[in-house]
Amino acid sequence: MLNYTPSPAKGVPLYQGLYRCIREDILSGKLKADAKLPSKRSLAQHMKVSVITVENAYAQLLAEGYIRAEERRGYFVCEVAERADAAAPMKAEPAAEASAAAPCFLDLCSNRPDESRFPFSVWSKILRSELSGPKRRLLAATPAKGAPELRRAIADYLFACRGMSVQSGQIVVGAGAEYLYNLIVQLLGRERIYAVEDPGHVKAAKIYEKNAIPLRYVQVDEKGMQVDALHESGADTAHISPSHHFPTGVVMPIGRRQEMLAWAEAGKERYIIEDDYDSEFRFAPRPLPTLQSIDVSGRVIYTNTFSKSLAPSIRIGYMVLPPQLQERFERELSFYACTVPSFEQFTLARFIAEGHFERHIGRMKKHYRAERDAVTEAILKSPLADRAEILEKDAGLHFLLRVKTDKSDETLRREALAAGVRLAFLSEYSHVPVAAEMHQIVVDYSGVERERLQEAFSRLGEIL
Amino acid sequence: MLNYTPSPAKGVPLYQGLYRCIREDILSGKLKADAKLPSKRSLAQHMKVSVITVENAYAQLLAEGYIRAEERRGYFVCEVAERADAAAPMKAEPAAEASAAAPCFLDLCSNRPDESRFPFSVWSKILRSELSGPKRRLLAATPAKGAPELRRAIADYLFACRGMSVQSGQIVVGAGAEYLYNLIVQLLGRERIYAVEDPGHVKAAKIYEKNAIPLRYVQVDEKGMQVDALHESGADTAHISPSHHFPTGVVMPIGRRQEMLAWAEAGKERYIIEDDYDSEFRFAPRPLPTLQSIDVSGRVIYTNTFSKSLAPSIRIGYMVLPPQLQERFERELSFYACTVPSFEQFTLARFIAEGHFERHIGRMKKHYRAERDAVTEAILKSPLADRAEILEKDAGLHFLLRVKTDKSDETLRREALAAGVRLAFLSEYSHVPVAAEMHQIVVDYSGVERERLQEAFSRLGEIL
Repeated sequence: MLNYTPSPAKGVPLYQGLYRCIREDILSGKLKADAKLPSKRSLAQHMKVSVITVENAYAQLLAEGYIRAEERRGYFVCEVAERADAAAPMKAEPAAEASAAAPCFLDLCSNRPDESRFPFSVWSKILRSELSGPKRRLLAATPAKGAPELRRAIADYLFACRGMSVQSGQIVVGAGAEYLYNLIVQLLGRERIYAVEDPGHVKAAKIYEKNAIPLRYVQVDEKGMQVDALHESGADTAHISPSHHFPTGVVMPIGRRQEMLAWAEAGKERYIIEDDYDSEFRFAPRPLPTLQSIDVSGRVIYTNTFSKSLAPSIRIGYMVLPPQLQERFERELSFYACTVPSFEQFTLARFIAEGHFERHIGRMKKHYRAERDAVTEAILKSPLADRAEILEKDAGLHFLLRVKTDKSDETLRREALAAGVRLAFLSEYSHVPVAAEMHQIVVDYSGVERERLQEAFSRLGEIL
Repeated sequence: MLNYTPSPAKGVPLYQGLYRCIREDILSGKLKADAKLPSKRSLAQHMKVSVITVENAYAQLLAEGYIRAEERRGYFVCEVAERADAAAPMKAEPAAEASAAAPCFLDLCSNRPDESRFPFSVWSKILRSELSGPKRRLLAATPAKGAPELRRAIADYLFACRGMSVQSGQIVVGAGAEYLYNLIVQLLGRERIYAVEDPGHVKAAKIYEKNAIPLRYVQVDEKGMQVDALHESGADTAHISPSHHFPTGVVMPIGRRQEMLAWAEAGKERYIIEDDYDSEFRFAPRPLPTLQSIDVSGRVIYTNTFSKSLAPSIRIGYMVLPPQLQERFERELSFYACTVPSFEQFTLARFIAEGHFERHIGRMKKHYRAERDAVTEAILKSPLADRAEILEKDAGLHFLLRVKTDKSDETLRREALAAGVRLAFLSEYSHVPVAAEMHQIVVDYSGVERERLQEAFSRLGEIL
């Protein structure tokens, strides 16, 4: 039997220690490929730790590909390429990498789509069929803007599902939205001031910061970014998510949208970056038209990604450029190779064109709606019911839960984590936190285990 | 009465079709400002659709500000800025995309690996086997630096084939070298001056320029970048390709390498970006150690890519960071998602770990050597023989052909193209062209058709 005494280091959960010990043994070759690991129960008994601890350690090893699970047979060591430095003590991966994947009893901010719902068999059928296609096509680089077939499929999809009438030439495909934001900075030029939403998506702001772009944090109210404040900010570029503000879920009404467009038209070379991330999953019956589709002056750059709607490993995002920026892109940035492998582009193109993407979105919306209902029901049945209020629950994938408590958000977050429940608060997404935003939990239900909800909310109830 | 037959497109509600038809007419000016729209009931009767359909279409037009409602009078078209292209036919894809692929009789600067030599069956066998692996692993995002198994495989490969001893944690995987240069700019900070080789790789310089980094073009002599000139330039970051200078093929001797490292150590926070692109294909029997492997002060960032050694569609590059930059990356840039799909990463990891990559490189070297011999032989047999000299022919993939002529490089290029032969000249890669660099053709033989060589060189002979 394996024998580990993971030293309980400060701040490192027990399962992490166990995970590291086993990983070391796999990497050093002490545990050989295809060796069978003890069952969770027996290892837990042997080591005098809880089964959950072993379960969590195995889950992480599984997720990182060190071991594999075989149905009804148990866990086995995977073949791992031996490192030149295998005998040397493994340099620990930074805590950030490990803890990002650290499991706990219930993670309410996982932002992790349920991969079991991904239509894997259809996807891999298309992949396999593409593999049998002409080699030359698969191995050649696609144009800088992406494969024409993928851009066409996206244009058709946008027309059918978002009411957007765009030419495929306006579309630029890239390895995720983050990459595209970097391209946008290069496209618009650096002598600019960007406005971002406060609260809002921390990542976009970080990327602009890394590009040394001066940022203005503009307050979001119940209609989205405040246009007066935007005018005052002196910014000439605004990054907003009108159809699905994260994390509040606010949808910008048409009046505010027109104010935003009027702001853009009032200055020379003012642009709006419309971040339509996640908009597919809104539950509202009739989505509002995108800013892009009501923009008549070519001031809107529309961006979206498949990493959330399909799977995090599928690094494909796209943007729709207004005609004059399309020309500028072709003139100044088409020296860049497209960052997405041709193979993935062709597969996604067919996946969309054959209607699988739309069907997948339809199924996921249904699933997420059921998830949301289960979560809200569990809250209403729990001791939280009297002390909490659910806000903006049509956003899809997440809602806000405003709780009554005297504790600070940070204290709540820490105490919940100690009780095995990982939480994120609206205030974490604020640049200048305001009192009205306190005590609002951003409940992301995209990856929750239903059977744990009741227990998790009871624990939260005790903490409050 | 308006007459529309909105085509019932798949997945598009009828009211949407009607809404679009009316919007088009407003935008194209067919429906003028202040024109009265038919009442909902009469339009519904006329079109044989339900009143609800018309109501929905009007509601959306109203919401978007295309029409207005006047009490007891009905609906009227609003004044809308006319869109230039509303009625215009579909804009064609730009010619640039098409002409990049324009064929000619012989392309001596295609820089296109011969895809028939890619070990496609092995690659797709691994891909297929990965497809049958655990779904969760394929769909989850990898850590920011890339999949641990791929980084380990690269570390092992670098140890075995380049004599580099690096920890897998130092390696960062990204969607191609171009993407990684952008990351390097963000990693090192923007208050820097970069030195690039003159002549040299135009793309790297372009990327730094797009990042608004001040550039110094430092002359390359027969040993590589001139260190005196580098000192004088005031740069604190040098991007060089010591093992395989493009396009001259110059290899930096060990003495100059040590001078370069001494330059880096002489200043605080000076760094060298070692671009090892293509170094796999050098024909010299014993390659010089990389700068990275003789750097003891952590001043070298090593970069390489698989896009050239495997296939252009495989957008995977990597860099090796010195320890202090590894830490900085983890602290400041690990918020970025890795830009390469997990799927491709796992496949490449196994492709390398199982020895296929090394074998492929071995085979390609042999092939390119034969290609080179065929090209040089064809030159010697052609009328060019008396007027041309082959330089640096151990570089792999390309060599320089110095020709005697009174014509300018630009004239030669144009006349050759008219005769069906596409040429590139060393002078095109120079920032400040010097006389000694004139009349040198950069012959890239990676994608040439052998049977056309003789004819192509005869045509060139006539032009000279």
